[in-house]
Amino acid sequence: MEAARLHEYTEEMGDALSIDDIERPAVTHSDDVVVKVEGAGWCQTDNHIIEGMWTDYVDQDLPMTLGHENAGEVVEVGDEVQTVEVGDKVICHPVATCGECRQCRLGEDMYCENLAFPGLTTDGGFAEYLLTNERATIPLPNDVDPTDIAPHADAGITAYHAVKKAVDELNPGDPAVVIGVGGLGHIGLQCLDAMSAANIVALDVKPEARQLAEELGAHYTVDPTSADIPDTIADITNGHGAEQVLDFVGADETTGYAPDIVAPGGDHHIVGYGGHIHEPAQALVDGEFAYRGTLVGRYTELQELVRLVERGDVDLRTTRYDLSEINNVAEKLEHGEIEGRAVITPN
Amino acid sequence: MEAARLHEYTEEMGDALSIDDIERPAVTHSDDVVVKVEGAGWCQTDNHIIEGMWTDYVDQDLPMTLGHENAGEVVEVGDEVQTVEVGDKVICHPVATCGECRQCRLGEDMYCENLAFPGLTTDGGFAEYLLTNERATIPLPNDVDPTDIAPHADAGITAYHAVKKAVDELNPGDPAVVIGVGGLGHIGLQCLDAMSAANIVALDVKPEARQLAEELGAHYTVDPTSADIPDTIADITNGHGAEQVLDFVGADETTGYAPDIVAPGGDHHIVGYGGHIHEPAQALVDGEFAYRGTLVGRYTELQELVRLVERGDVDLRTTRYDLSEINNVAEKLEHGEIEGRAVITPN
Amino acid sequence: MEAARLHEYTEEMGDALSIDDIERPAVTHSDDVVVKVEGAGWCQTDNHIIEGMWTDYVDQDLPMTLGHENAGEVVEVGDEVQTVEVGDKVICHPVATCGECRQCRLGEDMYCENLAFPGLTTDGGFAEYLLTNERATIPLPNDVDPTDIAPHADAGITAYHAVKKAVDELNPGDPAVVIGVGGLGHIGLQCLDAMSAANIVALDVKPEARQLAEELGAHYTVDPTSADIPDTIADITNGHGAEQVLDFVGADETTGYAPDIVAPGGDHHIVGYGGHIHEPAQALVDGEFAYRGTLVGRYTELQELVRLVERGDVDLRTTRYDLSEINNVAEKLEHGEIEGRAVITPN
Amino acid sequence: MEAARLHEYTEEMGDALSIDDIERPAVTHSDDVVVKVEGAGWCQTDNHIIEGMWTDYVDQDLPMTLGHENAGEVVEVGDEVQTVEVGDKVICHPVATCGECRQCRLGEDMYCENLAFPGLTTDGGFAEYLLTNERATIPLPNDVDPTDIAPHADAGITAYHAVKKAVDELNPGDPAVVIGVGGLGHIGLQCLDAMSAANIVALDVKPEARQLAEELGAHYTVDPTSADIPDTIADITNGHGAEQVLDFVGADETTGYAPDIVAPGGDHHIVGYGGHIHEPAQALVDGEFAYRGTLVGRYTELQELVRLVERGDVDLRTTRYDLSEINNVAEKLEHGEIEGRAVITPN
Repeated sequence: MEAARLHEYTEEMGDALSIDDIERPAVTHSDDVVVKVEGAGWCQTDNHIIEGMWTDYVDQDLPMTLGHENAGEVVEVGDEVQTVEVGDKVICHPVATCGECRQCRLGEDMYCENLAFPGLTTDGGFAEYLLTNERATIPLPNDVDPTDIAPHADAGITAYHAVKKAVDELNPGDPAVVIGVGGLGHIGLQCLDAMSAANIVALDVKPEARQLAEELGAHYTVDPTSADIPDTIADITNGHGAEQVLDFVGADETTGYAPDIVAPGGDHHIVGYGGHIHEPAQALVDGEFAYRGTLVGRYTELQELVRLVERGDVDLRTTRYDLSEINNVAEKLEHGEIEGRAVITPN
Repeated sequence: MEAARLHEYTEEMGDALSIDDIERPAVTHSDDVVVKVEGAGWCQTDNHIIEGMWTDYVDQDLPMTLGHENAGEVVEVGDEVQTVEVGDKVICHPVATCGECRQCRLGEDMYCENLAFPGLTTDGGFAEYLLTNERATIPLPNDVDPTDIAPHADAGITAYHAVKKAVDELNPGDPAVVIGVGGLGHIGLQCLDAMSAANIVALDVKPEARQLAEELGAHYTVDPTSADIPDTIADITNGHGAEQVLDFVGADETTGYAPDIVAPGGDHHIVGYGGHIHEPAQALVDGEFAYRGTLVGRYTELQELVRLVERGDVDLRTTRYDLSEINNVAEKLEHGEIEGRAVITPN
Repeated sequence: MEAARLHEYTEEMGDALSIDDIERPAVTHSDDVVVKVEGAGWCQTDNHIIEGMWTDYVDQDLPMTLGHENAGEVVEVGDEVQTVEVGDKVICHPVATCGECRQCRLGEDMYCENLAFPGLTTDGGFAEYLLTNERATIPLPNDVDPTDIAPHADAGITAYHAVKKAVDELNPGDPAVVIGVGGLGHIGLQCLDAMSAANIVALDVKPEARQLAEELGAHYTVDPTSADIPDTIADITNGHGAEQVLDFVGADETTGYAPDIVAPGGDHHIVGYGGHIHEPAQALVDGEFAYRGTLVGRYTELQELVRLVERGDVDLRTTRYDLSEINNVAEKLEHGEIEGRAVITPN
Repeated sequence: MEAARLHEYTEEMGDALSIDDIERPAVTHSDDVVVKVEGAGWCQTDNHIIEGMWTDYVDQDLPMTLGHENAGEVVEVGDEVQTVEVGDKVICHPVATCGECRQCRLGEDMYCENLAFPGLTTDGGFAEYLLTNERATIPLPNDVDPTDIAPHADAGITAYHAVKKAVDELNPGDPAVVIGVGGLGHIGLQCLDAMSAANIVALDVKPEARQLAEELGAHYTVDPTSADIPDTIADITNGHGAEQVLDFVGADETTGYAPDIVAPGGDHHIVGYGGHIHEPAQALVDGEFAYRGTLVGRYTELQELVRLVERGDVDLRTTRYDLSEINNVAEKLEHGEIEGRAVITPN
């Protein structure tokens, strides 16, 4: 089968991956599942992987097929699989977990001590077929197209996970700030609107993104290039600050807003990871705020996100690309030229 | 009356405060309370105030009497005060709050929109008498000496507040790391032991502090000058990391431990504020951990801490000093020469 | 001034209260507030008070002016009142609290150890003027009419309080059952819809109430007189049951649904109190569900509800009546003939 | 192998079970585990099963081997089992779960949609060998004897689970009431003491049980046959009531204490299930308390309880009996003649 694979780390997106002909994966364990990939979302993290930015954090064995936002049709299952069968349309949670370690037993899929992360640590979904396991599959409602929903497998579930933590701390009418209304941010904003009665302030440098934010439920939009952010947030919140900040950018500049814009006791959620945090400890003490890192969400959270899609609460903007166009997609994203989310369709 | 006052910011602790003769405060509002100070703890924050380190965060009008860890006897009350009366022995919560703003109504005393913080923004307790209000006073059990308990008014309640947040996240047998077993740390460690069944790892560079930690309930003690901290914590926790880290130091070095020692989903609580945080956003994302700033605790938390003292769960190490020795105390603390906690006895 | 007062407990609603001419209340404490009543909601609890149903739970001194859902204009304030002034339009939280006891300090207004509950334990708002205190007043946004919003002071805040507890346990797409879409239920349903992405099932015997439920956001409506409730809820929830049940009726029959319709780990919130609970302890153990009693909400929750009204999320159906018609209103409610909520306008 | 089996429901404990010779279970699935039983605790629930009291709640196919508190040595494992191996000493969580359904994924083992509950719905551990699965086994620390710890598999984990919920709501010095210091209660009391700084009040009709409670950490003990419970709890708590009540009896009388002894906002946890709840809905509303049913705890909670045992925080009182004495044990428990917990040793 065809698969888009990374052979060496590079800054050059234009020919980062090569389309190789490799063997189709097959079931070898009782809970294995092989999925024919109908959609595989391209993610900013794919660019980061290509650049070698994850080598400090995980083990990677090149060449490796990328693609961690996968959905498609089940074509083969292990002999003890019970909850999906051949022919089912499924979205794949990004990690295949063991179900036995304490973290799995707590429901903390992302902390599984034995996880495989296709597209990050094992072969992913920019290929005709993907090997994963039963614990990573979620059957889709009849009227949901796998290609359309694929990016929720990582972008969606990451945004949802951060928002769910924020919503726990938001009372009706509390101000919440969304920084960055791109691939993740536009999903997060919709989740926030559906799951809370917070007053949403959206920041983005692009006019189209701010326009989108308004359509999706933001009560205020702000252009950080023309407004003083601390003053603006103070004005909007009567000087109180935002109870929760969802930072889908994570640049030096955006993390630096926190001491000035987070309300006492509030949180600045780090979702994007473009830069660094540099703050005096005293700033966190004086404002009693937190920087909370946020990873991909749990399996059950992806189930909940699928429900939001089914309810019509979250609308994903996607564009489809052939597997052959994949390096083109990588380059476009690098230059901020992808509207919404790019989905690769390998079949 | 005599009061130890700061006239200008200085790095010189040896003559930082002058003992002035000023007017005794008196009741002017229906809820005012005047306390004859029997004990006023000296705090690292007093050194920071003297250095001008708080001018960026709060308004200060010099000269000002310092002292924010106060306890003593009620000598005058406003005409609508109901819950304390003249002659009562009380510990003073560090802030006098309005009781009307939304933050007060939520129980969030430290976020009161109209608070007075004696010793930080108004005249404090390094004086014979202190003006505060009913909402800042907690009557003491009969067998508790105000001078002994005074440091709990800030050091104690700050440590307790951080620990209470940590305990919410700690299951029996989970590893918790305490960084710094000094004035705050030795209280925090005892609270942690009393309020949870966590396995406690205490870090301190001083052998006596590690010895104290063991006596107070630490299951492991570590000397950061001789051990590799990430390796040591990994060994103790079977590679899992610590669910909760209580950083009573807050130096660049100690905040830098977080990515290596905090378990996935865990927290690094910033209590001390000696330095900075410098980390890539990606580290917080990959480890899904948080840096959580922590301020002084709530009024009700000071009530709870008094209960712990009454139960015999928390034992405070103090040494008493006359008001005239106050600059000497400032200098000693600057050089790490105070054992436990210094308490000024102005009367 | 005129006031509608209860002189003795009775089952006869038609002449339960007499319109007496009594002295206008005046400010005597520094935090007292006198409000000219523009609207005072009539509540099922008023009928219960008239019947003597609260004598086992609180102390009442007859004659007493009823009316605990009050809003109007501030006409006199104590000399230390800071947050409202004469001329302000306000809604009154139903209890005037001390702000000093531990429960107040925790934000638990309803558990205040020194509370006055106008209309239940002291003179209430079915009168031209009402005496309350600063801690019970919430200034209204400019475009909110006190008469329209008055019932939120108790009906609204009670419904909101129950819903807020339920929302904490509801993930997107989880089923939530609302029993009774009357005065409280129709508010609760709107709060649930605004604050969560739960799938709402509304039960009511009246067709108009079910119709209203649909308009206000219910995903399913059920007529308990024609449907088997356990089977119907099982069908709707794929056999799982409802994570949360909000019982605005609290009759023997409705509390009896719990073992059959509450999902494992879920809650059946008792808001209405028309009847009893009779269940084997084993039923609660086997289903691991809870019966959770729910009282009037906190002051800060009434602030949040006002925000929901301001956002346009909660629409209250009210009809206005003169003070002279008050016994007529009592009788109508007794016979279920009040649509939405009746508001008395004493001025 | 020999197994103690129930052939028909009966009130006669003296010959309730017959010792049959049946086939030894064997591994048939990739995750099956066969355990040689070294200890199987006898539980009050076994008496209830014999009486047919569970037929309304679960499906049972007689004859069935009872015994749901099992520990022993692994003797055979399925071909994909990773976390235990032949020769390991293990304690068995009472249910064998699928690991695939949403409830399993949430960590809610007891709500698994496909669970087997050996000793309640399939053959249990009053036999030489027990069939369970990998997800039900927890390896024991080296110095823990399986026979000694066996009752923690159900009695322990049930008590722990209830206490863990209570501890979440208990601040230092808050009063907590333990009703019944028998098999479950004496474990619960120790967990409460280890995991919180609550002030514990233990109720039991037996002097030895009250004596034991004091040794295990109770601050007060009360004999319900000689004291008025509401008055006594009011005295102990200064009229406030108990924040949390753990009812290990669950009789009509003990559930009836709730309105009088639970503090506002508190919980009465139903763990034992000897009787019924009969209360007016108004009582729950007025006191804003909850009756919270509580089932067996989660797998991860049994891990945590094993840690408490390893730390020396929980000491279990057990007596050992041969399999042949099993009906004798049943009869003794029925008459309240078992001290601590009886453990059957089938091998």
